[in-house]
Amino acid sequence: MSWSLLGQFKPRMGDRSVLPRSVVWIHNTLRLFDQNSLHFPYKLRYIEATTPEAVADAIRDMNVRGAPAIALAGGYSLALAAMRSRTKSSVEFYAEMKRVGAALKRTRPTAVNLANVLDRIFTVLDLEMEVEQHKKRILEEIKRIHAEEEETYKALSQRGSKLIPEHANVLTHCNTGALATGTSYGTALGIIQFAHREGKIDHVYVTETRPRLQGLKITAWELQQLHIPSTVIVEGAAGYLLAKEEIACILVGADRVLTSENPPYFVLNKVGTLPLAILAKYYNVPLVVASPLSSFDPQKKLNQIKIELREKWEITHFQGHQIAPDNTHALNPAFDITPPDLISAIVTENEIIYPNA
Amino acid sequence: MSWSLLGQFKPRMGDRSVLPRSVVWIHNTLRLFDQNSLHFPYKLRYIEATTPEAVADAIRDMNVRGAPAIALAGGYSLALAAMRSRTKSSVEFYAEMKRVGAALKRTRPTAVNLANVLDRIFTVLDLEMEVEQHKKRILEEIKRIHAEEEETYKALSQRGSKLIPEHANVLTHCNTGALATGTSYGTALGIIQFAHREGKIDHVYVTETRPRLQGLKITAWELQQLHIPSTVIVEGAAGYLLAKEEIACILVGADRVLTSENPPYFVLNKVGTLPLAILAKYYNVPLVVASPLSSFDPQKKLNQIKIELREKWEITHFQGHQIAPDNTHALNPAFDITPPDLISAIVTENEIIYPNA
Repeated sequence: MSWSLLGQFKPRMGDRSVLPRSVVWIHNTLRLFDQNSLHFPYKLRYIEATTPEAVADAIRDMNVRGAPAIALAGGYSLALAAMRSRTKSSVEFYAEMKRVGAALKRTRPTAVNLANVLDRIFTVLDLEMEVEQHKKRILEEIKRIHAEEEETYKALSQRGSKLIPEHANVLTHCNTGALATGTSYGTALGIIQFAHREGKIDHVYVTETRPRLQGLKITAWELQQLHIPSTVIVEGAAGYLLAKEEIACILVGADRVLTSENPPYFVLNKVGTLPLAILAKYYNVPLVVASPLSSFDPQKKLNQIKIELREKWEITHFQGHQIAPDNTHALNPAFDITPPDLISAIVTENEIIYPNA
Repeated sequence: MSWSLLGQFKPRMGDRSVLPRSVVWIHNTLRLFDQNSLHFPYKLRYIEATTPEAVADAIRDMNVRGAPAIALAGGYSLALAAMRSRTKSSVEFYAEMKRVGAALKRTRPTAVNLANVLDRIFTVLDLEMEVEQHKKRILEEIKRIHAEEEETYKALSQRGSKLIPEHANVLTHCNTGALATGTSYGTALGIIQFAHREGKIDHVYVTETRPRLQGLKITAWELQQLHIPSTVIVEGAAGYLLAKEEIACILVGADRVLTSENPPYFVLNKVGTLPLAILAKYYNVPLVVASPLSSFDPQKKLNQIKIELREKWEITHFQGHQIAPDNTHALNPAFDITPPDLISAIVTENEIIYPNA
């Protein structure tokens, strides 16, 4: 690990809605709330990254996770690389930044947000400028993006909460909370947060989300911080739940939404989303995808998507201990792809899209 | 724990198909292969029970699991109770056995096999007989049942393997192997075992089966013992798998098959079966249920079924360690109910039933 450890995070007592900001730029360094510290016993902590390599490590090790938070961390990572660059040549500097950007994009290839943020930062650069000017612009731009993101997730959450009826029991998958966006609001969980404030949420069911248990460890924790009543189930119990309880809707996030397909709106999201979508269809429960426009990808086609296959030890081991027989094979896709005919609504910051309308 | 620990199980090297027999009657005691010892590092062991209470503990703690194996253990448990009884009165003895039987039935209420085995043993008793005669008959009857079971699972496995095409990749859930039946053959896994011998199985995908990971710990181990190539996935990855790979069929067991319903053949099985059944329907993959007739229940109606809700710590803790935030609620149903319209075939020892034919 090339990041350094900061002190523990202490939530203020009695504050109803305080979640730690997961991506913070301070004193020319990047602080990331260590989402891997979100397990019992809770010794919540920030880690500090001063190099792009440290940020890349943190992304790969999922200290920072959630496509939007990763994108912000990647943007700040470029700012770190810029600050550390010694070159005086604008052309060399630009090439160096491009290399750093390319390496960052490879850390989590499925999410499009990171690539979008990096590409946007490059648009404000100009080979005519001095290196120092470049450095300044990079930092300014990622800060501007971060501020805009704050508005984006607030708008998305508020808009989506209109879809939630009174006395709703809802089901959500993985973690889509504020920690995953690097802002004060989540995506699917942001909608739940707003709907709860409006008194509409009776109960939130959360899939534990194997193999890394983001639902059990992170979403359950965030919901408790927000004083929203919740219950965790294993993914396999989703059928039992939908058959037995009245579930108003299933809310999920998106790592990438393909808009160039015909029909558009294929949704790449945490593995387990597709089975929930198929269950939702079977039980006639709306499936709501919460996705900022920055996760929309108008370029890539379905057949160009390569699903990230993660290490098998995420399944065969638990917290460093082997739990499977020796030589057990495991297939560990990080994402699956939900087709638009299974999606009732996609909530963005600007509008609600009904793929089947 | 009221059972005593025996030595380790050592499989003979090079034997292609040796799995430990999970229920063994020897020297007037019951030996149960401790399925909880099936985790890394493998210190496989038998436990020995000399009282019905010890057997009930072992059932409740899932040292013995799988509806058929539980049923055999329960039957032998009655034999243990009979041997230990001091009464000379036939009527008293009979009443005592009834009490033991009722207590046994309460250990895992969902599975019907246990109740069926106990009921069958009672049919050979006769209040006119001497107590010693009763004791002898109980033991004889459970031994006879065990021998019949051996034939049953062999016939079921052989019959079901006819449904498997050449070069099949199949998906299975939980554990339905020989350990779960107390004989040399499993149910769904017995079919896979036979089909593999006939050269038809290319690969077996296994869901890890949360929360207790019977797929990862037991099925993966049994398949390795049988030299059948296999890969474990998390339940959430079943959508990814079915969308991507050609899966010839999904094979599952059954804890109880309701035959009195209209239409009949609602299948109670390990939680997670229902979502797989809905996925199978969506992807047009046959869902094959392997169930001995002893798991058929012609009495109970759907609305009389109470799904066993297990302790939440199976989800919030892992191997004794808390992994969820304090005060996390969890809903932990042990089973779900799959309706007949989602079932392509039910394989019994006598015939193959096509619920939708």
